[in-house]
Amino acid sequence: KVELELEAIEKGGYPHFMLKEIFGQPKSIADSMRGRIHAGNESIQLGGLTGYFDRLADASRIIFIGCGTSWHAGLVAEYLFEELARVNVEVEYASEFRYRNPVIHPGDVVIAISQSGETADTLAAIELAKENGATILGVCNAVGSSIARATHAGAYLHAGPEIGVASTKAFTSQVTVLALMAIALGRRKGTLPDHTFRELLNGLQSLPGQIEQVLRNSDRIKEIGYIFTYARNFIYLGRGVHFPVALEGALKLKEISYIHAEGYPAAEMKHGPIALIDEDMPVIFIATRDSSYEKIVSNIQEVKARKGRVIAIVTEGDQLIKTLVDFTIEIPWTHEMISPLLSVVPLQLLSYYIAVMRGRNVDQPRNLAKSVTVE
Amino acid sequence: KVELELEAIEKGGYPHFMLKEIFGQPKSIADSMRGRIHAGNESIQLGGLTGYFDRLADASRIIFIGCGTSWHAGLVAEYLFEELARVNVEVEYASEFRYRNPVIHPGDVVIAISQSGETADTLAAIELAKENGATILGVCNAVGSSIARATHAGAYLHAGPEIGVASTKAFTSQVTVLALMAIALGRRKGTLPDHTFRELLNGLQSLPGQIEQVLRNSDRIKEIGYIFTYARNFIYLGRGVHFPVALEGALKLKEISYIHAEGYPAAEMKHGPIALIDEDMPVIFIATRDSSYEKIVSNIQEVKARKGRVIAIVTEGDQLIKTLVDFTIEIPWTHEMISPLLSVVPLQLLSYYIAVMRGRNVDQPRNLAKSVTVE
Repeated sequence: KVELELEAIEKGGYPHFMLKEIFGQPKSIADSMRGRIHAGNESIQLGGLTGYFDRLADASRIIFIGCGTSWHAGLVAEYLFEELARVNVEVEYASEFRYRNPVIHPGDVVIAISQSGETADTLAAIELAKENGATILGVCNAVGSSIARATHAGAYLHAGPEIGVASTKAFTSQVTVLALMAIALGRRKGTLPDHTFRELLNGLQSLPGQIEQVLRNSDRIKEIGYIFTYARNFIYLGRGVHFPVALEGALKLKEISYIHAEGYPAAEMKHGPIALIDEDMPVIFIATRDSSYEKIVSNIQEVKARKGRVIAIVTEGDQLIKTLVDFTIEIPWTHEMISPLLSVVPLQLLSYYIAVMRGRNVDQPRNLAKSVTVE
Repeated sequence: KVELELEAIEKGGYPHFMLKEIFGQPKSIADSMRGRIHAGNESIQLGGLTGYFDRLADASRIIFIGCGTSWHAGLVAEYLFEELARVNVEVEYASEFRYRNPVIHPGDVVIAISQSGETADTLAAIELAKENGATILGVCNAVGSSIARATHAGAYLHAGPEIGVASTKAFTSQVTVLALMAIALGRRKGTLPDHTFRELLNGLQSLPGQIEQVLRNSDRIKEIGYIFTYARNFIYLGRGVHFPVALEGALKLKEISYIHAEGYPAAEMKHGPIALIDEDMPVIFIATRDSSYEKIVSNIQEVKARKGRVIAIVTEGDQLIKTLVDFTIEIPWTHEMISPLLSVVPLQLLSYYIAVMRGRNVDQPRNLAKSVTVE
């Protein structure tokens, strides 16, 4: 009984840890940035990486490794690091990386991503990369964890403990910290124009408020979730930096509602998955006003022509997509490179509400452990 | 009427082009190798690449681009080129590559993979890479196609025309040609020991006969397909070089049966997808006797512990897995690096039989075109 009461207190009035953590993101993202953006947005400082920015700037290649949601954060980082710092990036499943005989050079920098800092495959991949002479940086949440100790240097998330098995605030804090790293690296390498640098820093600092705004929309997302409670399958589509968001949105739904959801880069749809589309297949598009807007509108039209039911995450004020799809969820505009931090939030909420309405044990879904510390 | 008779003749006694093409793989793979392996297995010669092997050998990085099944062939190639020729490899969706601002250097070699040679996104990606000074090689089936003309050099598949919309023989010929390239490159770079070189060439030459053997097993695969005709979802799992085979097997099932099938690297299962596993979720494992055999056996046990129904593709004579799973399909042993050429065949057949039993239009599945020549 005491334990139950204790748990209720820890949940802070929310019915589940996951919901508390989703709603905690304005704060956790602010915590991840705190003390790292300096005076008048003039510079970024990541204390844990002091002395390692030279290596990052000289890296012939940056390899992100992770599992599950952390791997998705790595995929987002690929777009950020390539675009902002013009460096070759690879993203590897830790499990695949460690069991093949990967080609690693001493000039490579490996960035390991793990909420718990205890993921077994990621830890083993780090050791392998280290033996081959690479520099290893860590992006972990748990201070003093095995991965934090095994890396040469790193940046903590400072997102606070994450209890829900399905990662939410750790993902957004991972992307926040990786964005800070990419921006700092681009600044240092001279690949990032001043105005973009400032636009990104302003954008990051507006994020907590913008996420509040998305969260205020949670009743609408709940209503949409209610309509799709008994869907058997879902497809999530996005382009560019929103492709990993599509993967992450699908993973959330899988994890807690046990609905078979799959993410895809939207353009790949025509190379197979579009055969699945009919009136029974809901499709979620991340269709914000970014560089790929027109392409994604055309993908939406193709799905609607095949009678798919479409939910679109759109930029507020979008009029066109509203006329094409079944449901839209609006999010505020921000710079494309950091927009995954906004577009993922309605997808977290949608998964949460669908799972709750299906009566699932949201915080402890079947078969899953919070951190996978065995192989 | 004449047209129907003509079609019947072209199908050569098979009810569908797809089945004809699956059964044509012993010949199409032999055709892809013909004249390319020289006197007593001493050397490989790919005429279309003459004069370009220096650039391949000096490449700082090889980037494979493709869409759909061709992208899966690129993922297999990643394992082959890294393992046999010790070169950094990236694999990109053509659609994602072209719309981001990719980091390309003149020392990079881009290998574009396309059956039709007309895939719009791949063609646009080639032009972009060319502008940035990369060397572009093509691996196409259609002679004189747009991609074949846009590349600096290339190797044709010689697999003969593929009519079925779901690619089968083009995939195995793509992997065959890419394997020849990886082996030749490894030989030239001195990264491939003589005995492995010979083992691989002998292995390749035994493949047509070994595929005949798999095809003789088609009645058993048909029986298993019958049992799973009304499955709503499938998960395909593999490790290492069989991870892309899992993706390809799932794509085949999606394309022609409209069952929602998804491929995953087996180790990622614990990071989310395992929540989907119950008695209603069939799981296909590629579990041949390779370097990851023990790990995959342990993944199988985890799925069985959650009551998943398991079909495993195993190496002939395997006794252990038979005792763990619901159904096994045996394939002959070959060198791990070329084993996708065998393990994919039963997956093609399984998709075919399930789709036929569901009454689908196998050769022309809904919503799909044979080649995606528009964006």
